[in-house]
Amino acid sequence: MLIGARAVMGSNGSHKAIDPASGETLEPAYGLASEAEVEAACALAWAAFDTYRETGLAERAAFLEACADEIEALGDALIARACAESGLPRARIEGGRGRTCGQLRLFAQVVREGSWLGARIDPAMPERQPLPRADLRQRMIALGPVAVFGASNFPLAFSVAGGDTASALAAGCPVVIKAHNAHPGTSELVGLALQKAVARCAMPEGTVSLIFGAGTAAGTQLVSDARIKAVGFTGSRGGGTALMHVAAARPEPIPVYAEMSSINPVYLLPEALAARAEALGKAFVGSLTMGAGQFCTNPGLLLAIEGDALERFVAAAVAAMHEAGASVMLTPGIASAYAAGVERLAGHPQVETLARGLAGEGPNRCQAGWFATDADTFLADEALQEEVFGAASLLIRCRDLDQMKALSEHLEGQLTATLQLDTGDIAAVRTLLPVLERKAGRILANGWPTGVEVCHAMVHGGPFPATSDSRTTSVGTRAIARFLRPVCYQDLPEALLPEALHAANPLGLWRRTDGELARA
Amino acid sequence: MLIGARAVMGSNGSHKAIDPASGETLEPAYGLASEAEVEAACALAWAAFDTYRETGLAERAAFLEACADEIEALGDALIARACAESGLPRARIEGGRGRTCGQLRLFAQVVREGSWLGARIDPAMPERQPLPRADLRQRMIALGPVAVFGASNFPLAFSVAGGDTASALAAGCPVVIKAHNAHPGTSELVGLALQKAVARCAMPEGTVSLIFGAGTAAGTQLVSDARIKAVGFTGSRGGGTALMHVAAARPEPIPVYAEMSSINPVYLLPEALAARAEALGKAFVGSLTMGAGQFCTNPGLLLAIEGDALERFVAAAVAAMHEAGASVMLTPGIASAYAAGVERLAGHPQVETLARGLAGEGPNRCQAGWFATDADTFLADEALQEEVFGAASLLIRCRDLDQMKALSEHLEGQLTATLQLDTGDIAAVRTLLPVLERKAGRILANGWPTGVEVCHAMVHGGPFPATSDSRTTSVGTRAIARFLRPVCYQDLPEALLPEALHAANPLGLWRRTDGELARA
Repeated sequence: MLIGARAVMGSNGSHKAIDPASGETLEPAYGLASEAEVEAACALAWAAFDTYRETGLAERAAFLEACADEIEALGDALIARACAESGLPRARIEGGRGRTCGQLRLFAQVVREGSWLGARIDPAMPERQPLPRADLRQRMIALGPVAVFGASNFPLAFSVAGGDTASALAAGCPVVIKAHNAHPGTSELVGLALQKAVARCAMPEGTVSLIFGAGTAAGTQLVSDARIKAVGFTGSRGGGTALMHVAAARPEPIPVYAEMSSINPVYLLPEALAARAEALGKAFVGSLTMGAGQFCTNPGLLLAIEGDALERFVAAAVAAMHEAGASVMLTPGIASAYAAGVERLAGHPQVETLARGLAGEGPNRCQAGWFATDADTFLADEALQEEVFGAASLLIRCRDLDQMKALSEHLEGQLTATLQLDTGDIAAVRTLLPVLERKAGRILANGWPTGVEVCHAMVHGGPFPATSDSRTTSVGTRAIARFLRPVCYQDLPEALLPEALHAANPLGLWRRTDGELARA
Repeated sequence: MLIGARAVMGSNGSHKAIDPASGETLEPAYGLASEAEVEAACALAWAAFDTYRETGLAERAAFLEACADEIEALGDALIARACAESGLPRARIEGGRGRTCGQLRLFAQVVREGSWLGARIDPAMPERQPLPRADLRQRMIALGPVAVFGASNFPLAFSVAGGDTASALAAGCPVVIKAHNAHPGTSELVGLALQKAVARCAMPEGTVSLIFGAGTAAGTQLVSDARIKAVGFTGSRGGGTALMHVAAARPEPIPVYAEMSSINPVYLLPEALAARAEALGKAFVGSLTMGAGQFCTNPGLLLAIEGDALERFVAAAVAAMHEAGASVMLTPGIASAYAAGVERLAGHPQVETLARGLAGEGPNRCQAGWFATDADTFLADEALQEEVFGAASLLIRCRDLDQMKALSEHLEGQLTATLQLDTGDIAAVRTLLPVLERKAGRILANGWPTGVEVCHAMVHGGPFPATSDSRTTSVGTRAIARFLRPVCYQDLPEALLPEALHAANPLGLWRRTDGELARA
């Protein structure tokens, strides 16, 4: 573990990773955190906070870039270890490293640009009647140290130096990262890279700490600690809601940004289906089975209107499913939960099994599964909305557009909703769109929901249970807003004001003066 | 009650207001909401939502202005009733009406300007290697119908058409308002004005509803209703935290914006105290006793370093206190809670009573109270941090600046922190400021915290228990952000995109394209 600048062998038992491809245990053992060790990490983060949050824009941006540089400097050792611990193919891991470093560098740009400071100035009006107005200035400051929980399915881009860490550090929040036990070695390597960047850039040592823990004790302690002021989490609905409860029960409740559960409905609109049923069927299976379907945005639900075109789609998809290889899943736990979820669907009296993929050889293989039911069954059984994490999906055969819309109203919150549409479908989609806006964080046309671009306009979020907080995104530059709060300064002498609010605008920020946006 | 376009006599018992100045009951009786009536208001709000949230910027702004016009058109009847129900002087109520209407008109400007839509566009990059980028566009949409709880201490500006209602309506959220029982007649009048504006502007009838309810049942039902997506509340810590628990326990948890409890520390820095102890003492009592101290931002805590200058301050303030008249408090409940709080302080073995104001005659009078203790006592007794709502304040005599700082670290979250400082105090304040930024939403110099300007830079918020969500403000234009969430549109044909994201920028918005802010 990394407690600030120290490397510490956790004193509360130990844990080894498993290579899911072979089922073999991987050396070495990683020590797990005692209460005192979690406590030490929180104390260091707290001690770092006031200094770190006031680092200059250029300085903090350079630190984020140094984090990216140091991760790249880990070279092939990182790739090899991440592949072994996750069972993911080398190309995925290399892509994940690029995404991780690109994300850190994008947040460096965001920090430099400075709009996140949300500077607002309402100058004094000493002559105003009946009462003068004071000089009022507002900027955003960091919330405080953030607890980050690594996710299993993106051992780089949603883990130790992933989006939560990058956006929290960009906002000026120290992080205490709880590594995911599926990839302790990968976590340690990335943690060491961050630690190096902290030292190289002379940031306070508590800016980054990394702890290991078994079960839920260390994570619960972390989220309960009074010095932690926000939580970033990507994982299961059970895990996320448990953290929400811990955070809400604190003497001082804190925000939890948990990205949890989504089945990502895909709508096959009639014209599009008629025009290209076969191509859509094939593409659907590609999106479903990629990476053993271990994506938050996996297309777990298809909605289409019964008829000949749908049957052509089904035939094409079934054929593709029969050839879909069985990829290794991330952990034995995920593989067995997947198998149980698929069995539940297969055994449901009103659910038809349309196709299974290839069974594969070796442990922890994901045999893809595709199922179908009718709208009435889906509406009557809440359990059919539960995410089966992996390459499983359910087709709902609807009578007509109205039923498709009614079914949409019945859905829980989602990360994405996808529309396969042609020009002739636009009128139909127009009636559907308001429902989808209420249900999902991202609405896409003629693509597949897997693949989440890291950019300014991305929303990787959505109403509960997709996330715990629909007002936010965990991917893209708006993610920084999760870790900020506004502070107003009234009549403070310039000597005491933060630079962002000085009269001369020395940082060259976009600022809102009397409501009017301008730079310089 | 107003259930959409209907005026309904609540069928679940009735309630009459009390004139706190005389203790007499005021006619008429107002019917309280049954479960079915609360349900009807929520159903109408839900039915209105998709239409109301997509009203055009000009149209919605005109509606907010119509609300202000209709409130003004109520004329003197509103003023007379609000004075009778609140015991507040006419000038306060007239000022409150001006503030309420000004606030609605300011949000109309905000709606028209359109930056709240947060439009972002990342254009497609079809040629990008290794993977093309899709066209990604983001805007903010309204969260859904909002439950607004009127506050007792601002029967206009924080009640039926107050800041929560104005910002929710500006964001595109219908509101279901639970009137405060202290001023049902005022609530009805303002509700009727809003109802008229809804009709005049042809908004969906469920855009505004107003219900009455006794106890907590109607409010709990409202916050539990699946169609309510956020809550605005100003009131007691007990009331706010109860609503937070109800909201967190829902199948779909929702955000609660509760503005609750703050004692608003005022720091008397040494140089300022030495230079103008007497003037500060007098001004302090003015701020403390204004409006019977019934402000969220009342200066309930003073911190100063022991010595001659402090004793001069005390002498001046004590003299002013002895002449401070006893104003009428808002309700018998508030008056008796105030009396009990003051008695608790007066009876505390380590607390000295510095002065009491005049006792006054008649019911529900607030006899001001000023108390003192030492830092060690304050640090040892959490109960001394509890807000006593009314004109009561506690002076902490500190040994030195370090103790003042240690004591600040010990404080709960606050709406404001005030510094009385001179140039010679700047170095001392510099060490204090990081603590205050962590503790308070607004930091002010050489003024008094009462008086919250409605403008762009205001923050009326702060860490728990000042509010339930330190990331937000309930006063000022940033309040609109509480009721919005981002939605991303990927590769949607322009025919389906909201106008805010059309290529030609027909709304003339500030938009972020590839991260770069520009208009037109």
